[in-house]
Amino acid sequence: MSEREGFAAEFQRNQSRYLEQWKTFLSFRSISTDPAFEKPCRECVEWLRDHLTALGLSARVIETAGKPLLFAERPGKPGRPTVLFYGHYDVQPVDPVELWNTDPFTPELKDGRMYARGAQDNKGQVFYVIKAIEHLIASDNLDCSLKILIEGEEEIGSGSLSESLPELAPLLKADVMMVCDTGVLDRRFSTIMMGLRGIVSLEFRLKGPNYDLHSGVHGGVAKNPALEVARLLARLHHDDGSIAIPKFYDAVEPVDPEDRRLANELPIDAAWYRGQVGVDPSGGEQGYTPAERRGFRPTIEINGIYGGYAGEGRKTIIPSYAGAKISSRLVASQSPSAVLQSITDFLREHAPRDLEFQIIDAEPGGAAFRGKSTSPLIQKAREVLREVTPEGVLLNWEGASIPIVTGLAEATGAEPLLVGYGLEEDCIHAPNESFSLEQFEKGFLYTCMMLRRLSA
Amino acid sequence: MSEREGFAAEFQRNQSRYLEQWKTFLSFRSISTDPAFEKPCRECVEWLRDHLTALGLSARVIETAGKPLLFAERPGKPGRPTVLFYGHYDVQPVDPVELWNTDPFTPELKDGRMYARGAQDNKGQVFYVIKAIEHLIASDNLDCSLKILIEGEEEIGSGSLSESLPELAPLLKADVMMVCDTGVLDRRFSTIMMGLRGIVSLEFRLKGPNYDLHSGVHGGVAKNPALEVARLLARLHHDDGSIAIPKFYDAVEPVDPEDRRLANELPIDAAWYRGQVGVDPSGGEQGYTPAERRGFRPTIEINGIYGGYAGEGRKTIIPSYAGAKISSRLVASQSPSAVLQSITDFLREHAPRDLEFQIIDAEPGGAAFRGKSTSPLIQKAREVLREVTPEGVLLNWEGASIPIVTGLAEATGAEPLLVGYGLEEDCIHAPNESFSLEQFEKGFLYTCMMLRRLSA
Repeated sequence: MSEREGFAAEFQRNQSRYLEQWKTFLSFRSISTDPAFEKPCRECVEWLRDHLTALGLSARVIETAGKPLLFAERPGKPGRPTVLFYGHYDVQPVDPVELWNTDPFTPELKDGRMYARGAQDNKGQVFYVIKAIEHLIASDNLDCSLKILIEGEEEIGSGSLSESLPELAPLLKADVMMVCDTGVLDRRFSTIMMGLRGIVSLEFRLKGPNYDLHSGVHGGVAKNPALEVARLLARLHHDDGSIAIPKFYDAVEPVDPEDRRLANELPIDAAWYRGQVGVDPSGGEQGYTPAERRGFRPTIEINGIYGGYAGEGRKTIIPSYAGAKISSRLVASQSPSAVLQSITDFLREHAPRDLEFQIIDAEPGGAAFRGKSTSPLIQKAREVLREVTPEGVLLNWEGASIPIVTGLAEATGAEPLLVGYGLEEDCIHAPNESFSLEQFEKGFLYTCMMLRRLSA
Repeated sequence: MSEREGFAAEFQRNQSRYLEQWKTFLSFRSISTDPAFEKPCRECVEWLRDHLTALGLSARVIETAGKPLLFAERPGKPGRPTVLFYGHYDVQPVDPVELWNTDPFTPELKDGRMYARGAQDNKGQVFYVIKAIEHLIASDNLDCSLKILIEGEEEIGSGSLSESLPELAPLLKADVMMVCDTGVLDRRFSTIMMGLRGIVSLEFRLKGPNYDLHSGVHGGVAKNPALEVARLLARLHHDDGSIAIPKFYDAVEPVDPEDRRLANELPIDAAWYRGQVGVDPSGGEQGYTPAERRGFRPTIEINGIYGGYAGEGRKTIIPSYAGAKISSRLVASQSPSAVLQSITDFLREHAPRDLEFQIIDAEPGGAAFRGKSTSPLIQKAREVLREVTPEGVLLNWEGASIPIVTGLAEATGAEPLLVGYGLEEDCIHAPNESFSLEQFEKGFLYTCMMLRRLSA
C-alpha cells in the first residue's frame, strides 16, 4: 500500500465522522460583514479552539479590534521546519437567500456534495486541513512544528489581522505558510497558485453646476461633468491597452521565462473563454497572452461609472456631477500606496480646472504575491501533488487578490505555498455554495502528504 | 390716455373676473404624460371650447391619435392678415407633491402671484392671450383674422399634433404665428425669442460579458464596457470643444452679424452665470461667446452615463454592459434625422468590434427655429414691446427646444413671433409653480397691442 493509499483508506474509514463534524463547523452563522452576526462568529472561533485542543494542539482565541483570531500550535522535533497554516472561518452573506435550495446554515450532503455557506470558502478547505492534522498527530506522523492561524475577517479585507501583524509577528514566525483558500482550473489537476495580484481602489467625482441643468438652456455653456469623466477615463490607457500613467510600469518585476512558459500552458484559449463568459479574451495590453496579462500585468479597471439620468426614457440634463469607481490590480513589486498616488495624481492633473475634482474613496488594499517556481518548496509540492493527482499539476498565476498573503509572508518570514481544491462549480459567494467530497478528499491527501514531506 | 393706458385700465377693471376664470382653467388636472389623467384633459379642452365660444369665436375640439386639440377661429376684415395663436393646455406632473405648499390644482393667489401647476406654463400665458382677445372682440378692435390652436401634448413632445399637421395644414394657414410659451431674462425687459435649438436623443450601450465579471480574475483579459463607453464618448469632441463627427457642422447656417451683435448684448456674463449655477460658462466650443454657443452652435451632451456598480462602497467587477444617454441640440438648418444618423454611425464605427453595440433609443425630436431680426414683423413687435416695457426689449437666441414650432411654421406658412413673460422664479416643471399678476398683465397688454397693430 502506497502512502497515498494509506491516507485514502484512513479517509474512507473516518469519513462519516468527518462529515458530521464538518456540518457542525458550517452551522455557525459566521458572516463577518454584518455586525448582527457577532455572536455566531465568536461561537465559531471558540468551537475551533475546543476542537483543536481536543486534537492535541495548544489552542487559544486572540482578540483584535474586530473579529477574534484562532491560534493553535504544536512543537515539532528539533531541527524540523515550522509550518504556519492560514485560513478563515468567516463567510460571505447569504443574500439572496430565496435562491438557496436548502438553508445556508443547515448543511446537507447530496450526491457527494456538501451544501452550505462556507462549504468550500473557506471552512470546507480549512476542515480537510484540520482532519489531516488530526490523523497525522494520532498516527504520530507529524514531526514539523505547526502553527495554525484562522481569522474572521478575510471576506471584509483582513483589516484587524493586518493591524495586529506587527505585534503577532514573533508568534507567527515560520518557514512555510500553507494557504488553502484557492482552487483548481480543472478537477483533474492540482494547482499551485504562484501569483496573486495586489489591489488598490478609488472613487472620484467631477462636480460641476449646483444642480442638474437643462441641457438646452445650458448646453454649450456649462461644462458637462459626465462627458469630462469619460474624457478623463479615456486618458488612462493608450490605444494599445497599456496604461498611460507615467512610470506606472517602472516597479513591475520582469517575469522569469520559465514562469511565462508555465503560465502559457494553462488551458485558457479564446474558445474556452468565450464559452465561459461570452466574450473574447481581448482586453488588456497588446503583445501579451491572456494568461500573461492576468498573471503578470497590472490593470486599471472601471468597476462603475455614473452621472445624470440612467432610468427609463429621457431626461435632457447636464448632470451636476459624475464619477467612477476604479480598481487597479498590481503585480510584484508594485507598491499599493505609490500606485494609488500615481493614479490619483494623474486624474487630478488631467481633470478640467473648471470642475471640482473630488476623491470619494481611496484604499491601498494590498500588494501582489509572486512565488518562485524554482524554489525547493515548490519543487517538493509539485512532487507531492503529482501523487495526489497523477494526471497533472498546474502552476497558476492568478489575477485576483488575497491582500493578507503578502503581508503575512513578510511578517512571518515564511514562504507561501498556496494549494486549494476549489472549483468554479462550487458557487462561492453565491447561493447554493457547495464542495464535493471528491475535492475535500484530495485536499486531505495533499495536506497529509505535504506535512509528512515537510516533517522529514 | 395712451393706447397702453387704455388697455391697462381695462385690465384693472376686469382683473377679479379674469382671476376667477383663470383659477377654473388651472383646476383641471391636465397632466399629459400619465394616462390616468385622460378625463381631466378632455374636460379642460371642452371648457376651453365653451369659453372661447362664449367670447364669440367658432370653437371646436379636434380629435387626434392622442390628446384632443382645441381649435377656434374668427374671420377678420378683408385684406387683413391671419394670426394663428399656438399654446398648450397640458401640464407637467406634480411630483414631488409633498414639496408643494398648496394643492397644485387648487389655485391660490398670494402676494400678487397665482400658485398652481400650469400657473405659468402654459395655461397662465394662454389665458392672458384669451382675455386680450376677449377684450378686443368686445370693444370691436380685432380686425385681423384669428385662429387659435391649443394642444394637449406639448409636455410630451407634441407627437399627435405633429402627426396631424399634414391634414390640418389648410385649416391652420396663417401669416403670423404667435407663441407665448417663452420667457424674459429680466422682469424689466420684454424678450422676443428669435431662435430655438432643435433636438435629437439617443441611448446606446456596449454589451460585453454575459454577467459582471470578477475584476481580478478577468482584469486584463476581458474588455471593460464601462471603459470603452468612456473612450467612445471621449471621441465625440475635439480638445477645443468642437464636435469631431465628420460633416457635423456642414448644414449649420451662418449667423447674421447683426444677430450676433444683438445676442452678445444679452446680460449673460461669467459672474452672473456663476452666481446662477455655480460654474463658469466654460463649456462648448472655443472661439465663441456663451451667448453665441447657446444660440447659434449645436451641441452633443451626455445626459446620463451608467455601467457597473454605483452604490455605496466597492464592488470589484468588470461590468457586463455600460451605456449613455445622449442628446444633441441642433441649430438652423440641421436636419434632425441626418444628425441622429451621423451620431449613431460615428459611435457604431468607433465602438470596439469585440463588444456589442446596441441602440436603446433614437428620437429625431425636432428641428431648430431661427427668425429674421430684420423682418417687418419683428420690427413691428419691437415697437409694440417698447411701449409695454419702456426699459427695453431684448432679442434672445435660446438654447432650448420647442420642437413643434418649426413644424407648425412650415405647415402653416406663418412667420413665428415668440414672446412670453415667464421668469426663472416661476418654477415651471417644479413644485410651487406660480406666475405674477405683473407679468400676466404685461402679456395681456402686449397681446392687445400686437393684435391691434396686426389688425391695421
